[in-house]
Amino acid sequence: MSDMVIEGDAARGEIVPFPGQETPLNIGVLGSGSGTNMQSIIDAIARGELNARVSCCVSDKPGARILDRARAAGIPADYIDPAPWKTKLEGPAEQAYIDHLRRHGVQVVVLAGFMRIVKPALLAAFPWRVLNIHPALLPAFPGVAGWTQALEYGAKIAGVTVHFVDSGTDTGPIIVQRAVPVLDDDTPESLHARIQVEEHKAYPEALRLLAAGRLRIRGRRVLRVDSPEPGV
Amino acid sequence: MSDMVIEGDAARGEIVPFPGQETPLNIGVLGSGSGTNMQSIIDAIARGELNARVSCCVSDKPGARILDRARAAGIPADYIDPAPWKTKLEGPAEQAYIDHLRRHGVQVVVLAGFMRIVKPALLAAFPWRVLNIHPALLPAFPGVAGWTQALEYGAKIAGVTVHFVDSGTDTGPIIVQRAVPVLDDDTPESLHARIQVEEHKAYPEALRLLAAGRLRIRGRRVLRVDSPEPGV
Repeated sequence: MSDMVIEGDAARGEIVPFPGQETPLNIGVLGSGSGTNMQSIIDAIARGELNARVSCCVSDKPGARILDRARAAGIPADYIDPAPWKTKLEGPAEQAYIDHLRRHGVQVVVLAGFMRIVKPALLAAFPWRVLNIHPALLPAFPGVAGWTQALEYGAKIAGVTVHFVDSGTDTGPIIVQRAVPVLDDDTPESLHARIQVEEHKAYPEALRLLAAGRLRIRGRRVLRVDSPEPGV
Repeated sequence: MSDMVIEGDAARGEIVPFPGQETPLNIGVLGSGSGTNMQSIIDAIARGELNARVSCCVSDKPGARILDRARAAGIPADYIDPAPWKTKLEGPAEQAYIDHLRRHGVQVVVLAGFMRIVKPALLAAFPWRVLNIHPALLPAFPGVAGWTQALEYGAKIAGVTVHFVDSGTDTGPIIVQRAVPVLDDDTPESLHARIQVEEHKAYPEALRLLAAGRLRIRGRRVLRVDSPEPGV
C-alpha cells in the first residue's frame, strides 16, 4: 500500500480496517485459478457463518474455473483484460478493475489465487480493504509455491497466512495464520492439499472478524477487539 | 559445517546422523545462560524417556547458572575461557572446547543457549553431531530474540526449531519444530515463556530420535525411520 494511504491513520497508532455494520459486507473476488478459496467464502456465507456477500468475481484469465464457480453461485463473473502486463495490474487495466469493483459496490477486495501484483492505485482505492491469502507461515516462504519451498527447505511446520495487502509482496499485516505439519512422505501435492484445508478455514475466519468490525491494525500487528466500534 | 565434512556423505544422498546404539548417548552441553533447556534434557533422562547422559557442561560465562544446574545434577561443569572473541568460538579456545568434549567422551554436542557462533573446527570434530535450538519457526526470525521479532512482525504463530548446526547461522537441517500461538496481549516475556514450554519438549524429542538412530538427512530434509540401522 502506498505510504500516503497509511500515514494518516498510522500516525494515530491505530487503524480501523472495517467498522462493524449491520448489512452484509460486500466482497469482490479477484482470482486466476480454480477458485477454491472463493468457494470456501461462498460456503461460509451460505452456512450463516459470515455476514457478507460476494457481489462480483473478476479474473485476468478468460477461461478460469473461478468464473464458472461464481456463475454457478449466481455471482456476476467477468474476465477483464489485464494487458499489457503479465505479472502485475497497473495503468488503464488496473483502473478498469477499480471501476468494475466500485460499480458493484465492493467494500473489500479478496485476492483468491490472483496471480498478479496489485499496485498502489488499487490499494489506494480500497485502503486496508484488500486481503490476500498465502500458502505459508509468512514471513517464511513468500513468493511462488510456498508449500514447495517449505518442503524443500525441510520445514516441519507449514501453514497459511491471511493478510492485508501492502505495497510489498506478501509483507502486509497478518490477520490469521494456521499451521499444518509437514510429513516425511509428503509430496508438494500432498502438502499443498493439507494447507488448502486450512486455507478454507482461514479466509472465512479473517473475513468474519473484518465484517464484524473486530480488527484493529497497530503498527504491523493486527489485534482483535471484543466488540465493534464506530468507524472513523 | 565445512563443506568437506558434508560432501562425502551427501554424495550418497543420505547421511546417518547417529547409528542406533545400546549404551546411553553421551551428550556434552554448551551454554551461556540459565540452562533450562539442559534441565529439560536432564529431566527427560531421569524420567527414562531418553537413553542418554549429560557427560559434561561447558560455559563461556564463568558465573552462568547453567553450570550450577549441572553441578546440582552431578555433571562435571566447567567454564572455559573463549577469549579473545566476543561472539564466536574459534582458534585455540575452540580447540580447548573440542579437547574438553573429547576427554569426556562426548558423542553429541548440544548448544543450549550458547551465545556464540561455532566454527568449522568444532563442526568437523563432531560431524552432524552438533545440535542447536532456536526460539522461532525457522527460516522465519533467525538471529537474536526470535520471539521478539515474531511479536513485532505481527506473526500469529511462533514456535521453536531444533536443528543440526551447519556453517550458517540458524540454517541447518531441521529435526523438530513445534508451534505456539501469539496472543494479542502478549509481551516479549509472555511469548518467550510460551515458546520455552515447547523448547523443553522439542529438545528431548530430537535427542530421543537421534539416540535411537532414527534420523536420516537427505539434502536439507531430516527424515525419521522406524527402526535404527547400523551406522556407516
